[in-house]
Amino acid sequence: MRKLLFVYLILIAVFVVYVYQYQTRDVSSNQWSENQLKGSMDETYVMVTFLSGIDYWKRPLKGFEDAAEALNVSVEYRGATQYDVNEEIMVLEQVIAQKPAGIAISAMDPEALNPAINKAVKQGIPIVTFDADAPKSQAYAFLGTNNLYAGEKAAHHMAELIGEKGKVGIVTHPNQLNHQERTRGFQTTISTHYPEMEIVSVKDGRGDQMISKEVTEDMIATYPNIDGIFATEANGGVGVGQAIKEVGKTETTEIISFDTDKGTLDLVEEGVISATLAQGTWEMGYWSLQFLFHLQHGLAAKEKDVQLPRYMDTGIHVVTKDDVSDYYPRD
Amino acid sequence: MRKLLFVYLILIAVFVVYVYQYQTRDVSSNQWSENQLKGSMDETYVMVTFLSGIDYWKRPLKGFEDAAEALNVSVEYRGATQYDVNEEIMVLEQVIAQKPAGIAISAMDPEALNPAINKAVKQGIPIVTFDADAPKSQAYAFLGTNNLYAGEKAAHHMAELIGEKGKVGIVTHPNQLNHQERTRGFQTTISTHYPEMEIVSVKDGRGDQMISKEVTEDMIATYPNIDGIFATEANGGVGVGQAIKEVGKTETTEIISFDTDKGTLDLVEEGVISATLAQGTWEMGYWSLQFLFHLQHGLAAKEKDVQLPRYMDTGIHVVTKDDVSDYYPRD
Repeated sequence: MRKLLFVYLILIAVFVVYVYQYQTRDVSSNQWSENQLKGSMDETYVMVTFLSGIDYWKRPLKGFEDAAEALNVSVEYRGATQYDVNEEIMVLEQVIAQKPAGIAISAMDPEALNPAINKAVKQGIPIVTFDADAPKSQAYAFLGTNNLYAGEKAAHHMAELIGEKGKVGIVTHPNQLNHQERTRGFQTTISTHYPEMEIVSVKDGRGDQMISKEVTEDMIATYPNIDGIFATEANGGVGVGQAIKEVGKTETTEIISFDTDKGTLDLVEEGVISATLAQGTWEMGYWSLQFLFHLQHGLAAKEKDVQLPRYMDTGIHVVTKDDVSDYYPRD
Repeated sequence: MRKLLFVYLILIAVFVVYVYQYQTRDVSSNQWSENQLKGSMDETYVMVTFLSGIDYWKRPLKGFEDAAEALNVSVEYRGATQYDVNEEIMVLEQVIAQKPAGIAISAMDPEALNPAINKAVKQGIPIVTFDADAPKSQAYAFLGTNNLYAGEKAAHHMAELIGEKGKVGIVTHPNQLNHQERTRGFQTTISTHYPEMEIVSVKDGRGDQMISKEVTEDMIATYPNIDGIFATEANGGVGVGQAIKEVGKTETTEIISFDTDKGTLDLVEEGVISATLAQGTWEMGYWSLQFLFHLQHGLAAKEKDVQLPRYMDTGIHVVTKDDVSDYYPRD
């Protein structure tokens, strides 16, 4: 009798625990289905780049990974190792064959990747471009820098550095659209807002450190009292910095450069480059994944066909000696 | 003895249940804290507008509400009832005094609201502008239409409608920047891409239906065989439609208008207006709340000061007879 009672009570206890467990599981699964911004770990989003080993992609990838953590999904990184558009097309085709949940691609050529991008769209794979657009493709959105605005921002900062007065030069890479826009934004802003500033020289540094150094030496020879130089890309900025350093004009000539590779950051820390413009690269990755997730889950617009914002300007931040340490890559 | 055993076993059962419950609660609170994209219902975000009763705000508010549901937070809608910037400033000041979790505001004046907007920023309240920007304020981001691109899109669609050939006119509201941009985008695209199309007339409809109708009558008198007219805003579009209808040229003159108020949609359904450009108003609301949530929770950038994308182009959709029914407001 005592034994029977014992067994009986054990059974009750087990039953109580089971019922409780069952109810709890039910509540928790309801919470999950209500939470639209939570994906599953077998949902894989892929970031595709070119020159995949360079430091530049570390921050977009970090943003992509941070968004994946927030949304509870998985990410992969794939890229062409070379600066070779055919290799990037091949990598993209391979990624499409995997049928991932979404793709974010930086297009090294604004046209050549279109057929592959459109193939992804046709197969129902969400795809966005970041950093470098393929504007005539069917990609759902582009997330990147507004280069015209970046040039304007550089001009205002230069004006502040030299007291809104003096001679300035530009070292740029005029074959590329993004550099043309940075140059134009800079020029327009100076001529519109700063009547006592004058752009005396625009040189082609061809995206090369040595050539940029040489054209800067020419510029200083012609205008020994030049007050500031804007370099529209990173290699050029380092070349300009070296030229100014060698002639001992670091104190009198302000340099504004672009991007945050190690060579540039070192010269900012040293005080040779006064400021460099950091693109919102973390933001490109973070919001790319957000957009892809919204497309994959049909959340981009509820009342009609999925529509995404077409363009997101991921912003520019002026990096100076004060915060340069935040920009060195972390492993 | 039997009784004691009974009490003893009950106590064990209760203890087992308690331990289980305790562990479950612990697991569930861990899940919650890991889920960065889940807020709490006592976190209130406020949308602020002017002319708060008009239909135009229904879709941004729906987007704002949908994002609130996805993020598990609360929203409120406040607006100046009149087209009166002082009233909007007053409403914004009242909202700031409530210390909400974030504010999305459509600025009816690009300058006058700046002190109040900057006050919110100073008090640590996240604030973004949508639909109409206050570009010199300290608002963290702007989410709205790229009007230059909207004009380009209108031009390409007009070209398609009239076979890339013929005479077209524009009825616009040249005092406002957004209308200047729509007009410029349209003109540039026609002159660049469609050599057999010509813009023969640009008239000022002053944002008024009657005046737009009159200037359209003048336009038809001068160019009886005009092939298409682009109206850069909704009242103008209805006026143009009425004029074309009255002279019985509905079959031969294509009209492209802007926005999706009821008068415009009715004329699209009737076949008088061939297409109207719908702005991404749902998107403005949805992504405004996403941005504010990210600011409030410090998620916008993890490695340095919170930075948001500066501008989001919320897109344009060409609405025709085929999908016009999707655009009537739902209650």
